[in-house]
Amino acid sequence: MISVFLLAALTEGAPVTSEYLQTRTQLIATDSSRRIGGKLPLSADEQIVNEVFMKEKRRLIDESRRNQTPYIPAQSFYISRPLIENSTLLKLIRRMPKGAALHLHDTSVTSLDWLIKNATYRDNIYMCVAADGLINFQAFLNPPNNSDCVWRSVRDERARAEDIAAFDLNLKRNLSLLVSDPLTTYIDNADVWRRFDRYFSQVQNLIYYTPIFRDYFWRMLEEVRNENVQYVEIRSGLDGVFDLDGTVYDAEFAVQIYKNTSAEFVRQYPDFSGARIIMSGFKDSPFDTILNEIKTAITLNQKYPDVFVGYDLTGNEVLINPLVFYIDALLYPGRQNPPVKLPYFFHAGETNWQGTETDNNLVDALLLNSTRIGHAFALPKRPQLLQLVRERNIPLEVNPLSNQILRLVSDLRNHPMASLMADDFPIVIGCDNMVVWEALPQSHDFYVAFMDMSGRDADLTFLKQLAVNTIKYSALGASQKKAAMNLWQTKWNRFIDEVVREQKAGRSYKG
Amino acid sequence: MISVFLLAALTEGAPVTSEYLQTRTQLIATDSSRRIGGKLPLSADEQIVNEVFMKEKRRLIDESRRNQTPYIPAQSFYISRPLIENSTLLKLIRRMPKGAALHLHDTSVTSLDWLIKNATYRDNIYMCVAADGLINFQAFLNPPNNSDCVWRSVRDERARAEDIAAFDLNLKRNLSLLVSDPLTTYIDNADVWRRFDRYFSQVQNLIYYTPIFRDYFWRMLEEVRNENVQYVEIRSGLDGVFDLDGTVYDAEFAVQIYKNTSAEFVRQYPDFSGARIIMSGFKDSPFDTILNEIKTAITLNQKYPDVFVGYDLTGNEVLINPLVFYIDALLYPGRQNPPVKLPYFFHAGETNWQGTETDNNLVDALLLNSTRIGHAFALPKRPQLLQLVRERNIPLEVNPLSNQILRLVSDLRNHPMASLMADDFPIVIGCDNMVVWEALPQSHDFYVAFMDMSGRDADLTFLKQLAVNTIKYSALGASQKKAAMNLWQTKWNRFIDEVVREQKAGRSYKG
Repeated sequence: MISVFLLAALTEGAPVTSEYLQTRTQLIATDSSRRIGGKLPLSADEQIVNEVFMKEKRRLIDESRRNQTPYIPAQSFYISRPLIENSTLLKLIRRMPKGAALHLHDTSVTSLDWLIKNATYRDNIYMCVAADGLINFQAFLNPPNNSDCVWRSVRDERARAEDIAAFDLNLKRNLSLLVSDPLTTYIDNADVWRRFDRYFSQVQNLIYYTPIFRDYFWRMLEEVRNENVQYVEIRSGLDGVFDLDGTVYDAEFAVQIYKNTSAEFVRQYPDFSGARIIMSGFKDSPFDTILNEIKTAITLNQKYPDVFVGYDLTGNEVLINPLVFYIDALLYPGRQNPPVKLPYFFHAGETNWQGTETDNNLVDALLLNSTRIGHAFALPKRPQLLQLVRERNIPLEVNPLSNQILRLVSDLRNHPMASLMADDFPIVIGCDNMVVWEALPQSHDFYVAFMDMSGRDADLTFLKQLAVNTIKYSALGASQKKAAMNLWQTKWNRFIDEVVREQKAGRSYKG
Repeated sequence: MISVFLLAALTEGAPVTSEYLQTRTQLIATDSSRRIGGKLPLSADEQIVNEVFMKEKRRLIDESRRNQTPYIPAQSFYISRPLIENSTLLKLIRRMPKGAALHLHDTSVTSLDWLIKNATYRDNIYMCVAADGLINFQAFLNPPNNSDCVWRSVRDERARAEDIAAFDLNLKRNLSLLVSDPLTTYIDNADVWRRFDRYFSQVQNLIYYTPIFRDYFWRMLEEVRNENVQYVEIRSGLDGVFDLDGTVYDAEFAVQIYKNTSAEFVRQYPDFSGARIIMSGFKDSPFDTILNEIKTAITLNQKYPDVFVGYDLTGNEVLINPLVFYIDALLYPGRQNPPVKLPYFFHAGETNWQGTETDNNLVDALLLNSTRIGHAFALPKRPQLLQLVRERNIPLEVNPLSNQILRLVSDLRNHPMASLMADDFPIVIGCDNMVVWEALPQSHDFYVAFMDMSGRDADLTFLKQLAVNTIKYSALGASQKKAAMNLWQTKWNRFIDEVVREQKAGRSYKG
């Protein structure tokens, strides 16, 4: 229909205005229907809820456009966070059942508040202030002498503090990447990555202390569930969990803690679909280390098929080894006799360096049949790879705030994945290391995806499809996926009912 | 070949490493060959020149990647300009025959240096300092009393100045958008647009003074030719050219000046292919004004077919009327009996506001069969429109530095058109209002396209194809286009010969 008109218009003789406007409306509708959720129908009740969502979306966009005032939702999260925190829309998105969180890393997923207010209040926790002014934490029976960074008992330090609340706030601020002047504090992606990497060394030996490790994970599940997320797939090194007597446990020990804690959590909260583990190596490791991890991963995948779902490699892609460096290790499972299946979930293309070895991690992720691809930020500039992703329907784990905080993109309306979302690529929204920038699990990332990475016309169907995608593209088996989807649908219906009831009661939504 | 391997890899059994690496190399090559110029062959001599280009490209990229230092070419032009100015690569790109400049606006195309050092040195030129601290210029026989902004003779003011060079530099700085601290001076796109709009009111009544108007255009042709650009299509309102006696001339008068000046220039410089005019209305005008402009444009197009090539509408798309507001005027030519052809060259999609009426200017540009589209910044987020652009091979005029200066995108590696350039969309590089940010005609924009908007592997073929595109997608008729292409090829061959000779003489390139 459109192309017929276009052909007509290409010849001489312009159409009457009403015909023109009709064709125009149709073309806009066709274009819009191609976006994520663009073809989902909305029930009468969903339409009522949709209006609540859209009222605030349209208001914020139109106010900024008409008055030429800054559009806060697309600005740096450092600046936008207070506005978002207080918005009706965030409150609604928090309540909305969002399905799964598929891109998380184990030492950056439980709120800094809990880490400070709970973990550091325990016995045997020490801190030291390093030369860079950042505080390292660690559990010790007796701390070693370390003149570079002198270990002191957190309990003693806190007892000596004049103001305990101020002391704790200071600890939190020392871990958080949030600063008042982000644009000058962190010059670029490389600069903020240095700070970001440092966070992990600050907390790792606190979080990997066995009793905290288990509780940190349990608390994460609570916090995730509080955001109406029902299932997680969490990346973990599985390496370095320790006890005060000096024991360092193996990967299987960590998997068992995850498995048991998750099972216990599901028993306590039957509306939760559980947690699964993606083992993640570090791209700075020697080849043999990665080969051994692959071997371990094969064993764990076979032994714990319901909890251990695959393998990934992480770290600042720009700096360290590309995937191809480990190619013989990564091809190892398929070369066994008989071949062994180890699903991969590679990070790839988390970079602005087009056409480099870093960028080419996308090539290896595809050739190694990665089940999903983490970030894939650079993918839109690789047309042949993009075509393969489309043909093979490979899900992309997009982490908007992570990419903004790590300075890959500033205005989130320019996030390269916005164009793929406009064309219904298989995308799931992740939140990556959200606690490092004090974001909530999934909710803040859903907020910016909705406000920045879709058009003014993209409505509740966009968010609904994003939620559905997280379950659709999870690593759950067919029957578990079906159960999770049913559970999600029940939660969704309840959410719609509640908001409709509130609307019908004539109350304007207060959150 | 690739898909066969992929299918094989999807089944069990991984290939041997050499097979894997071969497939990998092939996939990367296929991907890379899809970019602009990706399939162009290079002669032996071109390969020598290519190495000179690529040495610096690779050096800058690799240094920044390896050392994790800021990558200057992708940073704000305010910061990158001094580095680029001194680079061997810019000197090479300046010498390279770049074909045509197809996206320019008549009052912002001749260097501020010339404007200050020549235009303001003439008789009857006045200046006043407005309340916002910006200087307005105007030619008067006798300036009127204006208490808001008191007119003073530039000549008298300059004579009174202690330091004439400092006085002139101050005038230039007062016009330029370049500032030392751009990120805080201009908050966002809306903010810098206010300042940008103000530039035009500062200079319009200087440039549109008849004797300056002709010389400004002549000087522009000189400056463009100095950058090895051989042909221009310039947008002009054609409206407001005046004389000291109060006469304000009509559009035809301005067209005649352009026509005669261009013809004279081509006589003097037979290696230049001339200039053509795209009349451009302002999207803040009432409907009737635009309808009258369309009628004028039809007349001028018929009367001066070799110089007047079409019609456009300009202005900050976000704030003012969308194209559809003028639909009856824009459909007017095709509705005549017999229908009249008036080629359109619409600005559209110069915005981050996805899914708004602003964004929908792209829809109207397509439905009104725009010959080319100016900017099209938002196009990658409109999949159906993108598909039509591809099918109908509609050239896009991409203006990288303009988009960065006007704060649509900060890091140019995130420019949305980078993905389209990676897939050989019909793109021409423009420089828009380059003198407002003190960029050279075409050269600086070619530089950032090469360094930021293509991959590390994109080489001289990328730049060569971009140059060829400017002629291929110009509004020249078939025979003139052939002549212009032949002229370009001659210039290109000479350029290659010269650089090869310099290389063979064993000199490292000094520019």
